[in-house]
Amino acid sequence: MRFFQHEHTYRVCYADTDQMGYMYYGNYARLYEIGRVEALRSLGFPYKKLEESGIMMPVYEMKTRYLKPARYDEVITIRTSIKQRPAARIVFYFELMNQEGVLLNTGEVTLVFVNMQTNRPVLAPAELLVRLQPSLSE
Amino acid sequence: MRFFQHEHTYRVCYADTDQMGYMYYGNYARLYEIGRVEALRSLGFPYKKLEESGIMMPVYEMKTRYLKPARYDEVITIRTSIKQRPAARIVFYFELMNQEGVLLNTGEVTLVFVNMQTNRPVLAPAELLVRLQPSLSE
Amino acid sequence: MRFFQHEHTYRVCYADTDQMGYMYYGNYARLYEIGRVEALRSLGFPYKKLEESGIMMPVYEMKTRYLKPARYDEVITIRTSIKQRPAARIVFYFELMNQEGVLLNTGEVTLVFVNMQTNRPVLAPAELLVRLQPSLSE
Amino acid sequence: MRFFQHEHTYRVCYADTDQMGYMYYGNYARLYEIGRVEALRSLGFPYKKLEESGIMMPVYEMKTRYLKPARYDEVITIRTSIKQRPAARIVFYFELMNQEGVLLNTGEVTLVFVNMQTNRPVLAPAELLVRLQPSLSE
Repeated sequence: MRFFQHEHTYRVCYADTDQMGYMYYGNYARLYEIGRVEALRSLGFPYKKLEESGIMMPVYEMKTRYLKPARYDEVITIRTSIKQRPAARIVFYFELMNQEGVLLNTGEVTLVFVNMQTNRPVLAPAELLVRLQPSLSE
Repeated sequence: MRFFQHEHTYRVCYADTDQMGYMYYGNYARLYEIGRVEALRSLGFPYKKLEESGIMMPVYEMKTRYLKPARYDEVITIRTSIKQRPAARIVFYFELMNQEGVLLNTGEVTLVFVNMQTNRPVLAPAELLVRLQPSLSE
Repeated sequence: MRFFQHEHTYRVCYADTDQMGYMYYGNYARLYEIGRVEALRSLGFPYKKLEESGIMMPVYEMKTRYLKPARYDEVITIRTSIKQRPAARIVFYFELMNQEGVLLNTGEVTLVFVNMQTNRPVLAPAELLVRLQPSLSE
Repeated sequence: MRFFQHEHTYRVCYADTDQMGYMYYGNYARLYEIGRVEALRSLGFPYKKLEESGIMMPVYEMKTRYLKPARYDEVITIRTSIKQRPAARIVFYFELMNQEGVLLNTGEVTLVFVNMQTNRPVLAPAELLVRLQPSLSE
């Protein structure tokens, strides 16, 4: 199977840590956000432009598994994948690795497309499909 | 089926919102944390005491579904449930409702018990089991 | 000198802590926000209503002094004071105390009033002045 | 006057915004943290190493002025300056600019050096002074 994949790095800061000395479990959502926004940017489809065109992408579902803690000052690689052609929804898959390549965390975030005027769900913009097409299997 | 349930309220503040005017999707983890900590406190088993006794509870898994947005200044009811007798893991279930009783969000968070000295998993403390016992079905 | 004062409590959660075991220095702004919003609510002047009337209050300046750390699970008293009659600006003063009454932190936050349509500064709403009047010295 | 200066960039993400469409006023502390940590790293003096050597740097004071809002997806330049030779305290000065070079925010953060064993204040480590020396005026 062929699918779209993009990598971006993130350095864990003090703000991210908690008193266990780990990145707080609620902060992974921020890394997923950064991962998918940079993935879209790399496709020439910045999320900000999407909102300016009147479509926003609220999150519908998130699943995350904390395998090993991310720690202060570590540089985390956020690997973002899109495996299915988006329709009413788009699913992003995430793998987070530390500098030694150890897998720390996996995640899955489903977003929907919403027309900001009508506040109703819409299909994925044609432009996004066109840009994703070459990276996805038939 | 009988199970343990506890409710706590939380007012959405500006810090929680994002530019959609919704509570940011990453902030629900904070509400889940508050919900389960207050649930444990209501059982006479404060999480802080647990850490002082040398056991911590890192999160292993989180699943969350965003049904409707939580908005600024809304008072959210966090309903926390424990449905199974914990062993190596404990699972908390969450339902978040706004003031009109509308269900906004559901979540499921699995934590493990870890001995802070050895950094190895342990079973749920006997005291927690004793305190939960009366609220759980056989 | 007579001035307006209001108290509200806040329990430090895991999300607030950092790996020093302290509340992260950036999170005090959240407590100041909660303190001033509850202070306004106690005056019968909820901030949400203000925004609905077309006026928002962005922050212009913040000063904060970290005297002693706030720690996990402590219940912090946020004492919020308004000492001067607001005009183009309003200044809130904060004192944060732990359960033993020890002063942990002091803060000072200056906000301005902005008309959301024109995006220009305006004077404090008359209604706020009327409600504050009885608590302020001549 | 000669002083030490360092620049680092940061892209504002959705997690940083609030319902005004601005970066939340409490999140600037995170940018200051990133700015000073990268400034120290550029001096060959990573903060993480400092903590590993038994010295931590809690924040004593922060002052910040919000001149213009930072907005979603903007790339902010964090300019960090050290102007005085640190002794018991170190003061970092911050200027935040957007991509058009417009100054959005200024800040000043004072930190102290604390021996993590004794929990008592100590003087700035000699190594830091040596590394800063060439960049500071007599």
